[in-house]
Amino acid sequence: MAEKITPRSEDYSKWYTDVVQQAELADYAPVRGCMVIRPYGYALWENIQAALDRRFKATGHVNAYFPLLIPYSFIRKEAEHVEGFAPQLAIVTIAGGETLDEPLVVRPTSETIIGHMYAQWVRSYRDLPLLINQWNSVVRWELRTRLFLRTAEFLWQEGHTAHATYDEAEAETRQMLDIYTDFAENDAAVPVIRGRKSESEKFAGALRSYSIEAMMGDQRALQAGTSHNLGDNFARAFNIQYLDRSNTLQYCWTTSWGLSTRFIGAIIMVHGDDQGLILPPKLAPFQAVIVPIYKNDEERSQVMGAVERIRTMLGEGVRLKVDDREGYTVGWKFNEWELRGVPLRLEIGPKDVAQGQVALARRDVPGREGRAFVPQEGLAARVNDLLADIQRSLFERAVAFRAAHTFYPKTYDEFRQAVENGFAWAWWCGDEACENRVKEDTKATTRCIPLDQPGGTGRCIVCGRPADEMAVFARAY
Amino acid sequence: MAEKITPRSEDYSKWYTDVVQQAELADYAPVRGCMVIRPYGYALWENIQAALDRRFKATGHVNAYFPLLIPYSFIRKEAEHVEGFAPQLAIVTIAGGETLDEPLVVRPTSETIIGHMYAQWVRSYRDLPLLINQWNSVVRWELRTRLFLRTAEFLWQEGHTAHATYDEAEAETRQMLDIYTDFAENDAAVPVIRGRKSESEKFAGALRSYSIEAMMGDQRALQAGTSHNLGDNFARAFNIQYLDRSNTLQYCWTTSWGLSTRFIGAIIMVHGDDQGLILPPKLAPFQAVIVPIYKNDEERSQVMGAVERIRTMLGEGVRLKVDDREGYTVGWKFNEWELRGVPLRLEIGPKDVAQGQVALARRDVPGREGRAFVPQEGLAARVNDLLADIQRSLFERAVAFRAAHTFYPKTYDEFRQAVENGFAWAWWCGDEACENRVKEDTKATTRCIPLDQPGGTGRCIVCGRPADEMAVFARAY
Repeated sequence: MAEKITPRSEDYSKWYTDVVQQAELADYAPVRGCMVIRPYGYALWENIQAALDRRFKATGHVNAYFPLLIPYSFIRKEAEHVEGFAPQLAIVTIAGGETLDEPLVVRPTSETIIGHMYAQWVRSYRDLPLLINQWNSVVRWELRTRLFLRTAEFLWQEGHTAHATYDEAEAETRQMLDIYTDFAENDAAVPVIRGRKSESEKFAGALRSYSIEAMMGDQRALQAGTSHNLGDNFARAFNIQYLDRSNTLQYCWTTSWGLSTRFIGAIIMVHGDDQGLILPPKLAPFQAVIVPIYKNDEERSQVMGAVERIRTMLGEGVRLKVDDREGYTVGWKFNEWELRGVPLRLEIGPKDVAQGQVALARRDVPGREGRAFVPQEGLAARVNDLLADIQRSLFERAVAFRAAHTFYPKTYDEFRQAVENGFAWAWWCGDEACENRVKEDTKATTRCIPLDQPGGTGRCIVCGRPADEMAVFARAY
Repeated sequence: MAEKITPRSEDYSKWYTDVVQQAELADYAPVRGCMVIRPYGYALWENIQAALDRRFKATGHVNAYFPLLIPYSFIRKEAEHVEGFAPQLAIVTIAGGETLDEPLVVRPTSETIIGHMYAQWVRSYRDLPLLINQWNSVVRWELRTRLFLRTAEFLWQEGHTAHATYDEAEAETRQMLDIYTDFAENDAAVPVIRGRKSESEKFAGALRSYSIEAMMGDQRALQAGTSHNLGDNFARAFNIQYLDRSNTLQYCWTTSWGLSTRFIGAIIMVHGDDQGLILPPKLAPFQAVIVPIYKNDEERSQVMGAVERIRTMLGEGVRLKVDDREGYTVGWKFNEWELRGVPLRLEIGPKDVAQGQVALARRDVPGREGRAFVPQEGLAARVNDLLADIQRSLFERAVAFRAAHTFYPKTYDEFRQAVENGFAWAWWCGDEACENRVKEDTKATTRCIPLDQPGGTGRCIVCGRPADEMAVFARAY
């Protein structure tokens, strides 16, 4: 935490990078476009993993591991898939000192190799559904990269399921979208719009893609998780077939769904302020930090005694950091933990020990207003209540911010204005030509066609033809 | 579970592969030497991960993530390191449609890229020690591969630490060896010998390597975890320096340590029998399975009612599977769960419901002797006691097996005989020439120089010169 963070109003993009690096979430790697996820960032990812993995397992999914390296010929088996991914592939051509007969692709996603294995594992309807997830890293050679948001390698989970019917596959696709929504809103305090991607924005090889879309602090959109109904496209390409109850050979219906370390970018940009990160208590590596205050050894021993009593009081229920480092001023520590977004700070000095109190400071309410002296008695309940309140407030604040920057333009001129300032909900005829015009005129794209539609019909904001559905348009990361 | 498992006495190697595949732990991947870790095998790995990760964090380590792809020039910076790993590298030469100026290596291990980052993060003694672990996959292009034991890609954890002094680095190296030992013996019920590797067997680039060595069911040795004191070799190669308290620039002392999915091979081979896997309760994905027995709907509803009561009784404390699948016979289910090594089977039929009892069958004691009827009352305590007893028995049995196949030969002829039947403890002068002669004569290698020495001195089993230490020799995986 050497330098000052660039204020958001001055340069949002620079603010973001400053926060990521100075809070020690991540660092640039010596390979173009790659990053190192530092321990503090990884601890946040571990909490995200636990929150998702719990939900996956509760809905019957199990984890497995499929190979990193995929034969190049596999990628070519699904026509749209290869078209979408070929330009981004990293390719191993030499291994064990020899040039390979067939090059191997470092997985950009695993539909193909998993399809190949499913074809061998699935025999009858009794083997279905197959509900598997994997936690891994993937490589996509992106030209323009940004820490967490777009990197040549990223960590994620990719779920891959196979079903007997189209309906089951569609239900699974939607279930996982709902799980992402629940995680985003309830654990990360990030409000999202659940919706269908347009044909031009869908996953390469999918029948239908869904996403959750969140608004960042600069009013731009970020796709924070996706769930794809792959139809029978991959089942046909990889020959995933099963014998049904009447002994007839049928193709399976498959899905895939993923959420990545990109989500950390969303947490930073939805909640952060000019002092740095603000982490939602449910995911914060440390939910509270205690900063002891003393001037000499006698005070130190008094204060540290009280700190130990508080640590015991709070117990396992609170992820607590005690910052007892020597050689740093109290003010420096306050700044450090503000920068790192710890939701709650407890300060305790000799006077507080004498009076049986501590000072509690909320990260989400800066200055005097967010700071209060409270008795040590009953502290655990108070801390837990405050953490719950911070979690709720962060979500409400993000909902209010999004509402303040969501527009319902009536004319194309209003629309052009709207997408410069946030999300535009607008009727859309569904034609790619209209999407393209919007992109050329405004750099905004269709983020999704929300599942929660206002009802009724209207006229396309671009071409004026009749439209059944509204889409959300925005500039996106 | 279609085919029969080859008996160990007929073909141990085939028995191993049969168990891995039929118990659905892993499968061959369509890429040479790679494997797919199936959900049951991955669940075992998740339990291994949890058991280790808990120990790492309790000793102050944190997790992070470093890039998969490493510039080729990095690998060359430490002379012994490149010599050891160059022949096994998988190399990315094309990315994003273009030939790369500098090829990238798919990490075979991460000392080099982590060394590069540590050089940037470490400034002063106050930044030390740096105690970081990562969970990931690595690629080493092996010629002869076997599921779990030796695969072109494998999952592992690799810890990398940097310290201010040599002594601290050595203490860390030994601490992690002790953590592996504790995990192996107490959680996996796999007895191990802790020891130092010989100069010829140590890690490429290490000052000193330690390992834990276990005896498999065919009396061969398996190196089950390693911990390396890297001296200042990597610190000098990557310029990891710090300012000490007197403001003098010093090189750091680094360590690395790893345990991989290979350990699953050890669990299979230490405990398994001709019926299949036997899993230690502390790591088993399912600790107990309930097989309900009924002939008709009325019996079914009675029995399933009792099953639900038992499930509630056992609660969260036991990882329980209820096998209520239709269309499989009871005998088929018994075989299936024996093959999969579930430590405890609970059988319950209408007569048992009437009598308020269940039949409990231990996987580690086949046949009648391991099966008893017990009252449903107090079942949870009984199950927990039995699981603890199975855990203990598996360890004791493995210790006894190792003892029965451990020899203390006095002559080279006895020695040659000994390494055909197990572990040979023998005095060794430390000369590589003697190691090489043993290898040529017997295919056995020095597994380690055990930390727990008998004391005294002797004469080298090969050359007869004076020797200070005993080594353990064995044929190894």
